[in-house]
Amino acid sequence: MSDTTRSSALGSTGASELFQLLRDGRPRTRAELATMTGLARSTIGLRLDALTELGLVGPFADAVSTGGRPPSRVALIPSARVVLGADFGAGHLNLALTDLMGDELVSRRTEIDIADGPEAGLTAMVATADALLSHYGRSRADLIGVGIGLPGPVQFSTGRPVNPPIMPGWDGFDVPGWVRRHLDVPVLVDNDVNIMALGERSHSFPNTDHFLFVKVATGIGSGIISGGRLQRGAQGIAGDIGHVQIPRGAGIACHCGNVGCLEAVASGPAIARALRASGHDVAGGREVIELVRRGDIDAIQAVRQAGRDLGEVLTACVNVINPSVIAIGGSMAQAGEHLIAGVREIVYTRSMPLATEHLSIVQSRSGDRAAMIGASMLAIHHALSPAAIDELAAAV
Amino acid sequence: MSDTTRSSALGSTGASELFQLLRDGRPRTRAELATMTGLARSTIGLRLDALTELGLVGPFADAVSTGGRPPSRVALIPSARVVLGADFGAGHLNLALTDLMGDELVSRRTEIDIADGPEAGLTAMVATADALLSHYGRSRADLIGVGIGLPGPVQFSTGRPVNPPIMPGWDGFDVPGWVRRHLDVPVLVDNDVNIMALGERSHSFPNTDHFLFVKVATGIGSGIISGGRLQRGAQGIAGDIGHVQIPRGAGIACHCGNVGCLEAVASGPAIARALRASGHDVAGGREVIELVRRGDIDAIQAVRQAGRDLGEVLTACVNVINPSVIAIGGSMAQAGEHLIAGVREIVYTRSMPLATEHLSIVQSRSGDRAAMIGASMLAIHHALSPAAIDELAAAV
Repeated sequence: MSDTTRSSALGSTGASELFQLLRDGRPRTRAELATMTGLARSTIGLRLDALTELGLVGPFADAVSTGGRPPSRVALIPSARVVLGADFGAGHLNLALTDLMGDELVSRRTEIDIADGPEAGLTAMVATADALLSHYGRSRADLIGVGIGLPGPVQFSTGRPVNPPIMPGWDGFDVPGWVRRHLDVPVLVDNDVNIMALGERSHSFPNTDHFLFVKVATGIGSGIISGGRLQRGAQGIAGDIGHVQIPRGAGIACHCGNVGCLEAVASGPAIARALRASGHDVAGGREVIELVRRGDIDAIQAVRQAGRDLGEVLTACVNVINPSVIAIGGSMAQAGEHLIAGVREIVYTRSMPLATEHLSIVQSRSGDRAAMIGASMLAIHHALSPAAIDELAAAV
Repeated sequence: MSDTTRSSALGSTGASELFQLLRDGRPRTRAELATMTGLARSTIGLRLDALTELGLVGPFADAVSTGGRPPSRVALIPSARVVLGADFGAGHLNLALTDLMGDELVSRRTEIDIADGPEAGLTAMVATADALLSHYGRSRADLIGVGIGLPGPVQFSTGRPVNPPIMPGWDGFDVPGWVRRHLDVPVLVDNDVNIMALGERSHSFPNTDHFLFVKVATGIGSGIISGGRLQRGAQGIAGDIGHVQIPRGAGIACHCGNVGCLEAVASGPAIARALRASGHDVAGGREVIELVRRGDIDAIQAVRQAGRDLGEVLTACVNVINPSVIAIGGSMAQAGEHLIAGVREIVYTRSMPLATEHLSIVQSRSGDRAAMIGASMLAIHHALSPAAIDELAAAV
């Protein structure tokens, strides 16, 4: 290909737009692509050459030969590059290596303490990333992006945590900048609930455009998908339902500085505190779940009441954003159906009939893996966007 | 142009995609369009020919001659077609004729009674439409779409009202089907609060991507724009804040069948009822506003309390959707700053600091006209979409 021809195919947005059509992984003939885009066959050819040179697209090997020469098809090569999806919790790091479709290739769980600060946590991440890459026979050069979920508020545009309550040392830290000094690819950072929402939807509800994911653990938060897109709001803090006030919270102080917040009444530590007041020996949410599993009536009642409290706030969410699925995850969702039963009791009684007629309230189905996969999806969405593909092409 | 050439320019999505670039009204040279799209100049030429044949695009007359032959520019012709935007209330129909940029050409207000049923109301709309078209020297053939806002819930996908409480005879009525028998263009129908949100944003907050419009009148509702798009939710009823329960509503019955709803406490009729109980002679919201304007302390206090009640629900909305602007409109917003002062008092005290730091809570600026213009924007958005332009092109 002459230099001039190549720059006309790569320098424009043409190749990246063609690539968007192939992102779903389906193989297509050149004729199909010409029909879909209205472009001349010759233009399609030039652009496919450019994408092939990048290694992102290639001939699709048809399984069955029909005798005659079959029309050759091209498709995205999911294994062309790899992606890292990281889920940081207070005490763990779950890290997955995925392909370009977000399918997990290999993953590993590491115990960490988020309070050791960003350099310790991110050093552990980079070391684990190298181990996973090596285990899977790939190198840092194969990496196309890193997605990271953190257990606190994050300014999505810069990837910096904003006053995260349980993450000493992380406030304002330039997470993408630090990571890029080791893994030189785009790094996307979001709060853990948003990546759980992305992962849960991608795994279990791919066709649900109005979806609410709720995490109930040490804190309470939600990730909102409206109109098929994750909604972060003006400051990136949409979905912050833990600090909505509820009637039963009257007079109860919350660590946020306000009183009466949902989180001060219905989180794991809040339920444990209430049970301690009535004489039970429970340190936190984990012991509450153990009590529930042993059939302790007080614990079951306390979890159900927490579900009702959560239901008070979700009733307002249902009227405001009108989702068709609410998935409830986080460690406290492991307390069987009791939490969700409390939620349903209130939401189905109090919300408008039209809003609840087709509303499902379910337990999270993807569990721990949702967050890693969601983080990877975040990175893929960015790494395969038209602008990013243009940049890749320009660097060839 | 030969038939084959034309069908290759029109039969694909090419011309309509080029048109999307010109929808902002800015004139551009063919060279600029070629750079923006990566298409060959010859392809640009063919597609512009197709759009010119449709009358939607034409040469832009530059105001200043620079001596040499200036590069010729093309642009959307806003007056190429006209659009109707209709805002139905309980007792009025506001109808505007706009151009393709949503700018009002002429409008008229007609007194109607929505309870006379759909055929009476829509007959009045068609008659007024003919009068406006004729007044402006245009005909039904120039019309490219009709947008309609109704004062009740509407299933957006079908344009049919769903159990609208104040609209006897309208339930399930095929509004687009009826209108198309008279004005044969796409007809989009939505509830009044959604079109007010679209109109208010387009008029006063064009760059605000996270925007909440609240209407306080006989009922209370809101229209939500998140991520730059109107969010209707799974059943089209997102933003239904009037039936969220608030503490002060305890025991007060709402017409929806539930108790304690915001609307049962803070709407115009609810404020009037509370004032009557303390001996004032007020029939409804209008008389409440008159009392406030005369400086009646009881009325001012009642309106301010309604603002606080509204603030309780908006506090939850702020945490959940994190908007940067909340605009409050509807007839009760005319009670000066008292309503909004009550809202601000609660929202700025109770919402998370990060969410309120850059949050403006303002009175609606576009007033009555917002709804008509919003209805027109709804129709324009549909009529100029890629699929609609393709259909127009195929019919040439």
